[in-house]
Amino acid sequence: MPTRKAEASWNGDLKNGTGKMSFGSGAYTGAYSFKSRFEEGTGTNPEELIGAANAGCFSMALSADLAEAGYDPQTVTTNADVTLEMVDGDPAITTIKLNVEANVPDIDQDEFLEIAEGAKKNCPVSKALAGVNIVLDAKLNS
Amino acid sequence: MPTRKAEASWNGDLKNGTGKMSFGSGAYTGAYSFKSRFEEGTGTNPEELIGAANAGCFSMALSADLAEAGYDPQTVTTNADVTLEMVDGDPAITTIKLNVEANVPDIDQDEFLEIAEGAKKNCPVSKALAGVNIVLDAKLNS
Repeated sequence: MPTRKAEASWNGDLKNGTGKMSFGSGAYTGAYSFKSRFEEGTGTNPEELIGAANAGCFSMALSADLAEAGYDPQTVTTNADVTLEMVDGDPAITTIKLNVEANVPDIDQDEFLEIAEGAKKNCPVSKALAGVNIVLDAKLNS
Repeated sequence: MPTRKAEASWNGDLKNGTGKMSFGSGAYTGAYSFKSRFEEGTGTNPEELIGAANAGCFSMALSADLAEAGYDPQTVTTNADVTLEMVDGDPAITTIKLNVEANVPDIDQDEFLEIAEGAKKNCPVSKALAGVNIVLDAKLNS
């Protein structure tokens, strides 16, 4: 599998400096700042990239695991809430809440929840994020 | 600090389905697929988002730590290489290599490297990625 690339830069000091993050595929380049990360300000921040990566990895894994169990998932949509808070005086990413809604014909609720928990635990991004408490709220629309 | 949001969806099966990831700030929405993730194909993938988030967090932290130590960093630029490979039959994010170049007047090499190692270890995204071996290659342009 290919090695994936990305780049970021920071110019200046923490409070007034400016940053940029970009994907190696060329799909995105965008600005971030102290305000867009720790307060409210125009631009992105590393935490919403982490949330998108976890939601993206989980949605793909859940679809694959449902198909492997013999079901035919139509759509899987996941919202991620990423909590950045102070812990012992430093900012820390403590929790990611994954809120998933899936349209899956002919599956019962218990089996759906079991497969969803497995996808949350085993998708490569969840495993990488071993320092974070990842919580799942799964809803079946069948 | 605000909770950060993101969304992803997956439609269809693993090999032929299509996915989308977006940031809560509205800064980005983009497509991903089996090909753009595990092979070569147009689009993004969760791994390059993880790389951009780690590079972005580290670049900001290194600038802040250098300033705190009394230096005046001009620019910090970090490239991330994210390795996704098969481990015991499943894809896993095993290593992120951060290659940083920084312009920092009046600092000696040893102190720069020590501060860079600290920023790598302590930035919130590195701590979140506790399941990954994060390796640093730091170069000082002074």
